[in-house]
Amino acid sequence: MKIGVLLHGNGVYDGTEIHEAVLTLLALAEVGAETICFAPDVDQHHVINHLTGEEMPETRNVLVESARIARGNIRNLASLTIDELDALVMPGGFGTAKNITKWAFEGPQGDILEPVKQLIIDLVAQKKPIVGLCMSPTTIAKALEGSGIAATLTVGTDAEDSPYEISGISAGITSLGQQAEMRTVREIAVDREHRIITAPCYMMEASILDIRNNIRAAIDELMVLLQEE
Amino acid sequence: MKIGVLLHGNGVYDGTEIHEAVLTLLALAEVGAETICFAPDVDQHHVINHLTGEEMPETRNVLVESARIARGNIRNLASLTIDELDALVMPGGFGTAKNITKWAFEGPQGDILEPVKQLIIDLVAQKKPIVGLCMSPTTIAKALEGSGIAATLTVGTDAEDSPYEISGISAGITSLGQQAEMRTVREIAVDREHRIITAPCYMMEASILDIRNNIRAAIDELMVLLQEE
Repeated sequence: MKIGVLLHGNGVYDGTEIHEAVLTLLALAEVGAETICFAPDVDQHHVINHLTGEEMPETRNVLVESARIARGNIRNLASLTIDELDALVMPGGFGTAKNITKWAFEGPQGDILEPVKQLIIDLVAQKKPIVGLCMSPTTIAKALEGSGIAATLTVGTDAEDSPYEISGISAGITSLGQQAEMRTVREIAVDREHRIITAPCYMMEASILDIRNNIRAAIDELMVLLQEE
Repeated sequence: MKIGVLLHGNGVYDGTEIHEAVLTLLALAEVGAETICFAPDVDQHHVINHLTGEEMPETRNVLVESARIARGNIRNLASLTIDELDALVMPGGFGTAKNITKWAFEGPQGDILEPVKQLIIDLVAQKKPIVGLCMSPTTIAKALEGSGIAATLTVGTDAEDSPYEISGISAGITSLGQQAEMRTVREIAVDREHRIITAPCYMMEASILDIRNNIRAAIDELMVLLQEE
């Protein structure tokens, strides 16, 4: 079982959420899957000082920074073919909405990196499962815009504490022709028809234990889907 | 139980090893400990491109980069007092031997950041436990140089595959008046007298599962020491 892990930088505010990425790699190893980390070779939208929250006058490359999480064991998205993957996991962090889409700045109208869009469309067409964590379901929604596919996705719930306005992001997902469901950090959403699993993770106020359990539940469900083939 | 976690950058080749840091935070949460991440406010020795292994013409700050791992929830080492901590965990990565000591360049003769040296000496004097992962035992050895304390530490073993020359690093530890023992990634070293636990982690060829288990074993032993008080 070869599972792609799409990274988009190294740090929650301008790249991949690090806990989610590492706990994804852990969960995949625990279920015996082989992982292929990959990232697009593009500049980050910007660089955020994670101590102050302020923008820094620097340029960093998404692939190069993502390599830190992968200990150098990472591929350029451009070199990856869908045949190499049985499934895809997309950890969260603002990188998905800053470096892959522009959702963080422009909402659902913003562009998406074409190779990521194509990869998601091809995976769904080939019935290869996708796991979207945290903010990544917005990227799945953007990729499926206008495809005729209406996937069921979650980015959390307004019923419990969240640093974000979940209903607003959910409305954005709906505006792209997808369906948004509310889930707590103790739940996942499973779209069996399109073979897409989503989990709120750090979209909600959560501890690292919550994240660990949420991701493990999503990966366990991924294994169920892969064994149903 | 408040456990300090000393970070020294964000990436194995010039800072904290990310998997080790996150799996430390996970293990500490699992045993119910509260964590205080902290790092020194100094520039990194250098910046390494983790894709190519080459040095980049950039300057990055250890505290600012470490904040990425801690999701912004991090303290400046200079603001921390030993009274706030029941114990200390030191994840590995080259940052410990580049940004805290200069072991990576100068071996055991290189300097150590004075506040880190003082913190380690004070913790040992107050019998507050220290966990050193991966390459961090070299920093413990350097801190204890000339103290009259001879701690037992491990950085791995030559008996199994390692990317590093473990016997050479062990000899460096011995040259500082400490004792080096050989341990596999499935083992830890426990110095009950000085209350220091060390674990090889990524000093050995290892999977993320090995790292997870090695760190969890070290944290479990830390809880044993803390309950013995």
